[in-house]
Amino acid sequence: MGIYLDNAATSFPKPKEVANAVYDFMVNNGTSSGRGSYKKAMQSDYIVYECRKLIGKFFNFDNPKKVVFTSNVTDSLNIAMRGILKENDHVITSSLEHNAVWRCLKTLERDINIKIDTVKCSKDGLTNPEDIKKYIKKDTALIVFTQASNVLGTIQPIREIGAIARENNIPFLVDAAQSAGAMKIDVKEDNIDILAFTGHKSLLGPMGTGGLIINTDIDIKPLKAGGTGGDSAYEYQPDYYPNHLETGTSNVSGIAGLREAVKFLNKEGIENIHNKEKELTKYALERLQTVKNIEIYGPKDCEKMLSVISFNIKDKRPEDVGSILDQKYDIMLRAGLHCAPTAHSVIGTKERGTLRIGIGYFNEKEDIDKLVEALNNL
Amino acid sequence: MGIYLDNAATSFPKPKEVANAVYDFMVNNGTSSGRGSYKKAMQSDYIVYECRKLIGKFFNFDNPKKVVFTSNVTDSLNIAMRGILKENDHVITSSLEHNAVWRCLKTLERDINIKIDTVKCSKDGLTNPEDIKKYIKKDTALIVFTQASNVLGTIQPIREIGAIARENNIPFLVDAAQSAGAMKIDVKEDNIDILAFTGHKSLLGPMGTGGLIINTDIDIKPLKAGGTGGDSAYEYQPDYYPNHLETGTSNVSGIAGLREAVKFLNKEGIENIHNKEKELTKYALERLQTVKNIEIYGPKDCEKMLSVISFNIKDKRPEDVGSILDQKYDIMLRAGLHCAPTAHSVIGTKERGTLRIGIGYFNEKEDIDKLVEALNNL
Repeated sequence: MGIYLDNAATSFPKPKEVANAVYDFMVNNGTSSGRGSYKKAMQSDYIVYECRKLIGKFFNFDNPKKVVFTSNVTDSLNIAMRGILKENDHVITSSLEHNAVWRCLKTLERDINIKIDTVKCSKDGLTNPEDIKKYIKKDTALIVFTQASNVLGTIQPIREIGAIARENNIPFLVDAAQSAGAMKIDVKEDNIDILAFTGHKSLLGPMGTGGLIINTDIDIKPLKAGGTGGDSAYEYQPDYYPNHLETGTSNVSGIAGLREAVKFLNKEGIENIHNKEKELTKYALERLQTVKNIEIYGPKDCEKMLSVISFNIKDKRPEDVGSILDQKYDIMLRAGLHCAPTAHSVIGTKERGTLRIGIGYFNEKEDIDKLVEALNNL
Repeated sequence: MGIYLDNAATSFPKPKEVANAVYDFMVNNGTSSGRGSYKKAMQSDYIVYECRKLIGKFFNFDNPKKVVFTSNVTDSLNIAMRGILKENDHVITSSLEHNAVWRCLKTLERDINIKIDTVKCSKDGLTNPEDIKKYIKKDTALIVFTQASNVLGTIQPIREIGAIARENNIPFLVDAAQSAGAMKIDVKEDNIDILAFTGHKSLLGPMGTGGLIINTDIDIKPLKAGGTGGDSAYEYQPDYYPNHLETGTSNVSGIAGLREAVKFLNKEGIENIHNKEKELTKYALERLQTVKNIEIYGPKDCEKMLSVISFNIKDKRPEDVGSILDQKYDIMLRAGLHCAPTAHSVIGTKERGTLRIGIGYFNEKEDIDKLVEALNNL
């Protein structure tokens, strides 16, 4: 079987209901949603609608129509940022952004002259929300923050940043790639205007799913235009949600799987899930610190982070360590920059990269024990 | 079971190997591709790479790296058109475009002042390729044509249009939403620079899959930016393919299904598939013409069209007919504009819409018989 510790890239395994639902939809329904009006197509519509409702509720958001499905969180983030930012706009972001945010912002800086301010954080990846205030300008059009670093796991003070954004009437976009399904997110309490999520990480759903919670009335110009199954004679993307930002045939089989995934999360309880992962993270931090010549990055405090731990072994290349762990011990983790070079600048590993474990809900302490044993025997 | 005649929206059923492959990947592998370097991740990479190779070969294209995966053909078309067209550019298109092309062009006309010329076609949807020449200007930056109308089925003279585009050094983008998997497409022989396809229609693959064949060296500016699993320290989307236009975690489970779908198509043979569907279309046209008060649109010649037939019954609303067929006879087809109002302008049904059947590889003559019987008993 092997020991899978790459849940920060994508979760594995999924609850068995997820693959079953995908299979069942493909074999027994298979119709597109939002298009046909025959019974099976209506069932397809219902699956998608119920998933919108469940996802919305999961994040304490009560307008299913403004739960927009996308193909992954990168798609979501591009739709949001490119839909909001205009020429010369100013944007504030964290020092820990994944390339899904960072490359998109850099591209807009190059192409439409947006101005980017990056809020400094501590070496552990902690941001002081008060620091945001220093950067706010008259033309600040967006604050975009990752909720939890995919390199260090550090949880950002989203609620406090959101409050500052609200006070200043600036839209607040949260990249929940690592956090959705791993901790409680409440778009109302947390002052989140737009939440970008992916289906295949801690939400435990299929690849090819993701979305946006649009908890705001600001205009988001559609990134794509195409068929929406309604108002076909209108020559632009419709103004109403979800069609405003959704176009082309949806990945209904994927959404059918995501629906079951959210039902599973609800059944288990997000608090229980978070607590189990926190417990495993605490255990992993304790055990990893016993490894000779290890350097662990980030807050090293399970209350301040999600279940992502980056580390290095002195004088060894992370790629070589990763390769031995795979070949000799069948342990799967990631070596490299994890698509987030900015976070590596913070911890000084931009050249070297790190080894990273992503602990998931289905991991157990024994998985950590085996990893530690293997690291001790390198 | 019901009789499924909505294959122009999405094909159903799929070959059993397709859902099996999706399920198998989700349950037994589940890792992301292009990111990790452990064994399972390499298997995931291989699945994606082999699918690129198979898809490329299927369209007689020999550079798998320039087979780009997207989430659907709308995504593909938006990536291509928005990546190529610049302010004030001129574009030539058909009179039969789906909203995936048409809305995108209209949006670019509104936002960056592109100029659109629409090539007239006959009432049957036939375009004379010579007509294209009249519209070519010094600043024509793109010719975009659907290969087969999703309303009338009419096949466009892609090879001839492609030759004209080549002579004039204009990129030629083909929307193969309806044609990929339903007829032989050879990007070399057919002079296609960029082919946009979807996985879930006649390619018989899962929803959430699609792509582009980039048979050209022209620059396509990425629509999205984000993590690509490599060159992470580079702050923009990489210049090389497929990463230039692919970003975020791919729908690997979907691609695993698409891979099996293409293997199935290869096993059956695209000529055999096309011939069977042509035969069924011929039969359907003959049988439908016996229905009282029917008006059939399009070329009514199976050599000139793919297996999509639009029709109406005199004095009856297509929605009402569709509803009776569903409720009373369990026959699934589509009523409305099918996201292609331009095509309805050609046949004069822009207000009313049509009923549309989309015949698939798994349909049989009995399905047509039952439809005709039901229509006769309305």
